[in-house]
Amino acid sequence: MRADLALVGFGHVGRRFATLLEERRDWLSLDYDLDCRIVGIATARHGCVVAGHGLDAIAAAQRENGDLQVNGAVPAHDSFEVIRHLARSDGSLRVLVETTTLDIGAGQPAIDHVRAALQAGCHVVTANKGPAAFAYEELSALAADRGVSFLFEGAVMDGVPVFNLVRETLPAVDIFGFRGVINSTTNHILSAIEDGESFDTALARMQAEGIAESDPSLDVDGWDAAAKAAALANVLMRAQITPLGVDREGIGQATARLAMAAKGRGARVRLVASAARTPTGVLTSVRPVELPESDMLAGLRGMANALILQTDLLGEIAITQLGGSLTQTAYALLSDLVTVGRRHRRAPSGAAPGRSR
Amino acid sequence: MRADLALVGFGHVGRRFATLLEERRDWLSLDYDLDCRIVGIATARHGCVVAGHGLDAIAAAQRENGDLQVNGAVPAHDSFEVIRHLARSDGSLRVLVETTTLDIGAGQPAIDHVRAALQAGCHVVTANKGPAAFAYEELSALAADRGVSFLFEGAVMDGVPVFNLVRETLPAVDIFGFRGVINSTTNHILSAIEDGESFDTALARMQAEGIAESDPSLDVDGWDAAAKAAALANVLMRAQITPLGVDREGIGQATARLAMAAKGRGARVRLVASAARTPTGVLTSVRPVELPESDMLAGLRGMANALILQTDLLGEIAITQLGGSLTQTAYALLSDLVTVGRRHRRAPSGAAPGRSR
Repeated sequence: MRADLALVGFGHVGRRFATLLEERRDWLSLDYDLDCRIVGIATARHGCVVAGHGLDAIAAAQRENGDLQVNGAVPAHDSFEVIRHLARSDGSLRVLVETTTLDIGAGQPAIDHVRAALQAGCHVVTANKGPAAFAYEELSALAADRGVSFLFEGAVMDGVPVFNLVRETLPAVDIFGFRGVINSTTNHILSAIEDGESFDTALARMQAEGIAESDPSLDVDGWDAAAKAAALANVLMRAQITPLGVDREGIGQATARLAMAAKGRGARVRLVASAARTPTGVLTSVRPVELPESDMLAGLRGMANALILQTDLLGEIAITQLGGSLTQTAYALLSDLVTVGRRHRRAPSGAAPGRSR
Repeated sequence: MRADLALVGFGHVGRRFATLLEERRDWLSLDYDLDCRIVGIATARHGCVVAGHGLDAIAAAQRENGDLQVNGAVPAHDSFEVIRHLARSDGSLRVLVETTTLDIGAGQPAIDHVRAALQAGCHVVTANKGPAAFAYEELSALAADRGVSFLFEGAVMDGVPVFNLVRETLPAVDIFGFRGVINSTTNHILSAIEDGESFDTALARMQAEGIAESDPSLDVDGWDAAAKAAALANVLMRAQITPLGVDREGIGQATARLAMAAKGRGARVRLVASAARTPTGVLTSVRPVELPESDMLAGLRGMANALILQTDLLGEIAITQLGGSLTQTAYALLSDLVTVGRRHRRAPSGAAPGRSR
């Protein structure tokens, strides 16, 4: 079965996805009957291209200068023209792979890309948290209406399964809350503070090492964790909120003092994202929390992330990522692509896969 | 779609499964189109019954005296007659639910029950680790040959997904090793020792509280963990071993001294099950290991279990069960039943679901 893909966003994640797709090509073909072809690439700084018969994304990914003019590529006006080209292609599956840089205050341009693709009857896989954090209800309803999939496994914990875990392995389980450490930059900083660094020194070092952004406010102010928490609450608990509705407090000098005081008490401070079902709806928060050493979240250092799900039938279960990498995020897109293929074979008539998580 | 079930084994787990099936009946019907009917029950001490049109397993489960003579029930000679009766039933799905008490030295009688059901074209879901630990290659090949499923999610970490996690959410990921804490009794004892109890006192208390068996040797000598490790290695790494091939060392007085000494060094001792791929095959072991406090396995106390998977694409990821219960094990059977139903709809022609994990 041929799957035609458009890569909208072609930075580190998009390029790694293109090479991973090539590395696992035999496996995709043999185990999942997926023969993938890239029919368009859209970037913010290096233009856009489409190709009637597929283009050499590996060659494009390997060019240092960002030049997309590889064999078969024809220039396109913008990302939406790339999506329209995808919608006209004749693959059995047409899939938008969305990895643009996110405006975390509004979820754009990812939301517009996802909406355009779904409206045109294309499946969507994205590593962006914006669409699920800001527009999950709308986009999942649209996907159900068009009989296509809208998947975003990489949005919260890179390639470590969270949404797939619940959807595929926890049938009939009710999730009534969660808590987790889901932002690596702040966890790195808190670990460094425990080791004796000041907040400013730790942050500067994370920036020098490429772990923190040059503008670190999205991480340290808790916006990244809030967007992930909103996505989790929307999908797993039907919360219908946006990141703006998350009760949010970031980390700073005061947190550093709290962390050192906690350490003296044999405790740890972590930036905890949590959600709980209440009579007035789902309450979601992100804030520094002092945890006893026996709490599994207290033991997470550096890049380690974990999410604890509170369930009716299984009590508390946790999924932990002990280290993150670019490959993990790219893998999330690949696993979503496999899910699209599996669903297509289950419902070849084009029946809607349903909008429940 | 009607699913006819035979419950072979009707102790705590089998009874809780019967009540859980009733509690989630609407959900099974609405979300998975599964209408379940129990057509036979086999016990070791209270005889066996079958019923042409289904029997009231709830009534049987609620009887203190073990009497199985409920409406519609007809006595049967033994567990194999119950399985033959299941094979003759006319449900769209015929499923053996195997929860007998396990002889951990040989995996019986579970293996014989599973084999008989698969040979007769019935699906099998079991909470027993014996079949996957001792006979995975044979039984999974037999299931593939007959076009039926052989599932055992509850064998290692109760209802917390392990096999489903890998099969459904980690496509194209190679697992080259694992390590975990997967026996609760020994972990309870080690936690108690860290809190100052002696080995003998801790063990006696666990027995009094019903956490340890009156014959605790299966747990403290590492046999339970070895059987789970063998099942994991066979399924996730194609090891083709039995529990007898696991390099095994249990816990005892010497471990207690080691645990106290480790505590003095800021470390923890845990009974760790692990496997690694080597040029000469998969090496699997169970033994007490001293771990630094920063190791996530060191933080597990009491009933908490965790399994860390070592993967090519995702690095190390872990699934953690923060507390166990009878309901969790019963839920594992229910989730396996849902998987059987999903696969049946995907391959209604009776095509083999494949024997890869």
